[in-house]
Amino acid sequence: MNQSKLNRRSFTKLASGMALAPFLSNAYGQSSSNGKLLIIGGAEDRLNDRVILKKFVEISGGPSAKLKFILTASSDPTSVWESYSKVFKELGATQVEAIPLLTREDANQPEVILSILESDGIFMTGGDQSRLMAQLWETPSFQAIHQAFHIKGVCIAGTSAGAAVMSRQMIAQGQATLIPEKDVVSFDIGLGLVNRAIIDQHFSQRRRLTRLLSALAQRPDVLGVGIDENTGLLIQMHKSIEVIGDGSVTIVDGRRMISNYEEIESQEKLELLGVQLHLLPSGRTYFANNRAQDLHAAPSLIDAINVLVQPGPARI
Amino acid sequence: MNQSKLNRRSFTKLASGMALAPFLSNAYGQSSSNGKLLIIGGAEDRLNDRVILKKFVEISGGPSAKLKFILTASSDPTSVWESYSKVFKELGATQVEAIPLLTREDANQPEVILSILESDGIFMTGGDQSRLMAQLWETPSFQAIHQAFHIKGVCIAGTSAGAAVMSRQMIAQGQATLIPEKDVVSFDIGLGLVNRAIIDQHFSQRRRLTRLLSALAQRPDVLGVGIDENTGLLIQMHKSIEVIGDGSVTIVDGRRMISNYEEIESQEKLELLGVQLHLLPSGRTYFANNRAQDLHAAPSLIDAINVLVQPGPARI
Repeated sequence: MNQSKLNRRSFTKLASGMALAPFLSNAYGQSSSNGKLLIIGGAEDRLNDRVILKKFVEISGGPSAKLKFILTASSDPTSVWESYSKVFKELGATQVEAIPLLTREDANQPEVILSILESDGIFMTGGDQSRLMAQLWETPSFQAIHQAFHIKGVCIAGTSAGAAVMSRQMIAQGQATLIPEKDVVSFDIGLGLVNRAIIDQHFSQRRRLTRLLSALAQRPDVLGVGIDENTGLLIQMHKSIEVIGDGSVTIVDGRRMISNYEEIESQEKLELLGVQLHLLPSGRTYFANNRAQDLHAAPSLIDAINVLVQPGPARI
Repeated sequence: MNQSKLNRRSFTKLASGMALAPFLSNAYGQSSSNGKLLIIGGAEDRLNDRVILKKFVEISGGPSAKLKFILTASSDPTSVWESYSKVFKELGATQVEAIPLLTREDANQPEVILSILESDGIFMTGGDQSRLMAQLWETPSFQAIHQAFHIKGVCIAGTSAGAAVMSRQMIAQGQATLIPEKDVVSFDIGLGLVNRAIIDQHFSQRRRLTRLLSALAQRPDVLGVGIDENTGLLIQMHKSIEVIGDGSVTIVDGRRMISNYEEIESQEKLELLGVQLHLLPSGRTYFANNRAQDLHAAPSLIDAINVLVQPGPARI
């Protein structure tokens, strides 16, 4: 199912979804996607070595790949598009296109859906993650993104707000309290391409560990993934996670923690015992199933990697 | 050996140390001290409810306890003393005295040593922890503090710099980098009353988790203990740890982490895998040997508590 190009007939087939069901599930009801996610913590370099944006081009298939941009999160999509289209052309990409998807009406248009489906890489810009999801939620474009990812295996990249929407449980907003407190984070529903994780961005720069801990107290069943600015987490499904760019990725695992969340009132201080923290610097790759490295002393990381390389449930 | 008062004869005996050796060791070569440590993250309230300073009075034996102040860390001991002496008198303490210990010469004076030994509670003020240790290190006053703590079981309190010196491995200074980096923290030797831990203060307010993680990469054998401003960690030896005041205490346990410290250059980004984090809010008490609470899901915390309630080796 790794077609590089979809014609209108296969689009119709994809959009119906049913015919492809056998290809989409393994024994655990998970997608068997070989898609890639490039989750960027915001403020990625667009002027100098542009390591992360180059990676997006490469992972999507190189200079001739069809790179499509979703600008829906931005309050000023025109100037954002000017910037990215210029940068990607400078990087040698020859097929760079904005998807005309700014409203829910747009998200229902066949040409938008087709544009998504024929992409080799989709890049979601920054802005307001709730605005992006409000336009996309339960539209055919939402399904098309899942189809492109799960069936065709394209690279879905997102920076800042575009990174936040990668997860199903998405931080909509949250006060940056000094100490983790109860219920300071409000959630929204994201695209759910990443399974059982919450993504947070601008992580070290905006000192968001306390906010992420507050979020995990509310949702202890998922991993917290904090991504620094000008840093990308590349997830190759069923295979590996890799940190590129300038900073680090912080994985916060509270799945086995003891918390006083149920016993305290909103805004009270949280007790969080037994949280696991993994700090992954750029340049490092971690393989699923612990291949090619020795992580025996960090069983929680091995488990976290295995969670992150599983795509979220396909919604097609 | 829990004398409330020491006369000059017993002081001489204590200062010699040898006669008391049988009382000082258990089977593991650890002190059998029943002393208490009140480790304050700086900026403790001196105007309003003054919970932490009240606790110092109470733990030291109440209003008639001999409370002694070590102002050595401060660059302006006179005004610091004016402030504390006023506050503690307002709190009803009747025997409040500054120990005249500002230089190494002072630290050798019999009256200084005696003042330390006859105290019921010793309070070390903030300032520069390296200045404090430079005056105290390997002096009879240093020994006298250990004697008061290990033998007599007095309460030793310290705020800010006075908190930093509680541990043997003491953070002298360290850049607050956004991301944990190698060798950004420089160490000095502290009093070593706390065993196998590094204390950091102003913890949440100065966003010092990355600095503490950097420190632990250099000293992975010890616990990291981050104490917020206007927050106290009360350690009752062999018994319990308790968090009082306004904020939280963060215990960072990297003793089983995987780190790239040995493989990278100074100032390079650290990889730290499998760090345990425990966030203890004020109002909570944790008992050694897991009495009176159920912490089965956080074995690393149980172990951390057992480490913290063990006094460091007696240096008498």
